[in-house]
Amino acid sequence: MNVETLRWKGGIDGTLEMIDQTLLPTERVVLEFSCGQVEKVWEAIKKLRVRGAPAIGIAAGYGVCIGMQTVLDADKTTFFARFDEVTAYLATSRPTAVNLFWVLDRMKTLGDCLKRLENFDSRRAAQGLLDEARKIHEDDRAICHAIGDFGQALIPDGAGVLTHCNAGGLATSEYGTALSVFAKAFEAGKKIHVYADETRPLLQGARLTTWEMRERGIPVTLICDSMAAQVMREGKIQAVVVGADRITANGDTANKIGTYSVACLAYLHQIPFYVAAPKSTFDLTLSSGDQIPIEQRDPEEVTCGMGRRTAPDGIDVYNPAFDVTPARYIRGIITEKGVVSPVTEENIRKIF
Amino acid sequence: MNVETLRWKGGIDGTLEMIDQTLLPTERVVLEFSCGQVEKVWEAIKKLRVRGAPAIGIAAGYGVCIGMQTVLDADKTTFFARFDEVTAYLATSRPTAVNLFWVLDRMKTLGDCLKRLENFDSRRAAQGLLDEARKIHEDDRAICHAIGDFGQALIPDGAGVLTHCNAGGLATSEYGTALSVFAKAFEAGKKIHVYADETRPLLQGARLTTWEMRERGIPVTLICDSMAAQVMREGKIQAVVVGADRITANGDTANKIGTYSVACLAYLHQIPFYVAAPKSTFDLTLSSGDQIPIEQRDPEEVTCGMGRRTAPDGIDVYNPAFDVTPARYIRGIITEKGVVSPVTEENIRKIF
Repeated sequence: MNVETLRWKGGIDGTLEMIDQTLLPTERVVLEFSCGQVEKVWEAIKKLRVRGAPAIGIAAGYGVCIGMQTVLDADKTTFFARFDEVTAYLATSRPTAVNLFWVLDRMKTLGDCLKRLENFDSRRAAQGLLDEARKIHEDDRAICHAIGDFGQALIPDGAGVLTHCNAGGLATSEYGTALSVFAKAFEAGKKIHVYADETRPLLQGARLTTWEMRERGIPVTLICDSMAAQVMREGKIQAVVVGADRITANGDTANKIGTYSVACLAYLHQIPFYVAAPKSTFDLTLSSGDQIPIEQRDPEEVTCGMGRRTAPDGIDVYNPAFDVTPARYIRGIITEKGVVSPVTEENIRKIF
Repeated sequence: MNVETLRWKGGIDGTLEMIDQTLLPTERVVLEFSCGQVEKVWEAIKKLRVRGAPAIGIAAGYGVCIGMQTVLDADKTTFFARFDEVTAYLATSRPTAVNLFWVLDRMKTLGDCLKRLENFDSRRAAQGLLDEARKIHEDDRAICHAIGDFGQALIPDGAGVLTHCNAGGLATSEYGTALSVFAKAFEAGKKIHVYADETRPLLQGARLTTWEMRERGIPVTLICDSMAAQVMREGKIQAVVVGADRITANGDTANKIGTYSVACLAYLHQIPFYVAAPKSTFDLTLSSGDQIPIEQRDPEEVTCGMGRRTAPDGIDVYNPAFDVTPARYIRGIITEKGVVSPVTEENIRKIF
């Protein structure tokens, strides 16, 4: 099974299809975006209908193309005014998602080239942007395979492996990052057993990781986040692999809230903790995790996220979207260029 | 506000009233048990309609009285055959709840005395059992106050305090154990702020602890279990206090799943971690936590506990009800006889 979370159909006036991940695993609804509806793409990113750092990036690339559909026959000034507006607008959808900025910068670099071209042709320029968005998508596919190949070598045969949230096919173009490591280990004939943290509040582990693992035939057991320490203590876990949303120059890693907790527990139980992420997740402009802004999300995600109110009305809630795991708790960072280990600024620079 | 989780109305043919905690905080339903319906009391304990170690014990005491209502006019042999049957039956409702056994043993000790009495009178014997059940209830009230008084001295003014699950008034006769510490600190004029782990899968923290704290006017913030590490890292927590379901001779403590995780995180962040529990929670027949059987609960609690299915059908789930926190992670055990600290077998023996 390869999940196509995102798919572009047609040419520059085409359609972006997106699986609405908020409805999985009980419903599989494919959203369609076209006719310049960049606001709908923005909403889908904001509301986590598309989620996972690489997938957000890919969606943003195509989102630019959707936005440009209102100016396919405009003059150069109008075209690039719209381009600036659309890229700036999409950047506000998820402030912590560095892949979003990375993709938008890549689109803007191309935009700058197109601006300098003689004989401006709006449709040709839009085609250039679409080609770039498609290239970003294809590049991610290759990256996921490379991460899986490098990472699977770290997983012992017979290992119990734990992951938090969903860094899988749904979060990327295809195999995922952390889950690509498991998929490749499994394909290599290793008998592994995946423990999936349910990942409160939005339950990406319960809803998505278990579903993806089962689709691939990999044995998987669902646990609540609070049970990770217990399964570690019972000797069931030999490695932890998670994804990342942003990695700073020193290796500090922002990822889904709860990742830091798992890293602490792995450290205390002497279990290796790995981060699997493409190079595009690194933000070398930040020297350490202290500089990463932590997005606060809607309290309702905690108090009535699962179809029924589970806390008294109006109760105070703290709901950070991410936490930061310090580099010292990370045994290695698995990238498409190889494994960075030990995690130091110097070793990180080597892959760039 | 003092929550009356359990209330006996009338004499030996009276009624046990019980707040159905599974429906809080959205609905407040009071269940009634009478006419010998011990099976309904068993079901209420099993399904966590009444929960919290002391409250389970109190319910079991009254449960015996409910069971005996079918033999209020029976001869001695029939009376005590029923007594043996009822006490043995109630013991099967929650295998990890040591207070349940402690209360049933107390009832059985009285039963043995009654058996030896000349001039057997079934109604007088039943009255003796009811008096004992009421005494157990009243004793618990005094214990909760004493635990709170000893414990509050450990809480600094201005502290952020974290708790897991609900060891509050709903779990006991009145003030609770862990939450009694917070209530007494607050009454002593200390400005504290409570962080309540929501406590998956059954959300006792989200549903009950936040509700109790707000009823008492104590500032409270709800977090997901996976956020505890992050709030500790941010310096928001100066002490952790939790309840206990069973404490072994060496101080190892079984409590709601996730407690061990919080203890590990407190240890790593150098935050004192306290257990608040009455002496009746100790099981000195067990030398260490390795001997505590861990109850496995229904996977559905994890996969569709909150009104909607949150994982694929038929997925494998690991759902232990409890975990065991080793004594070395516990700064002190707060009992009605004082604080046991450091937590050693020798110091524990001293309070007995």
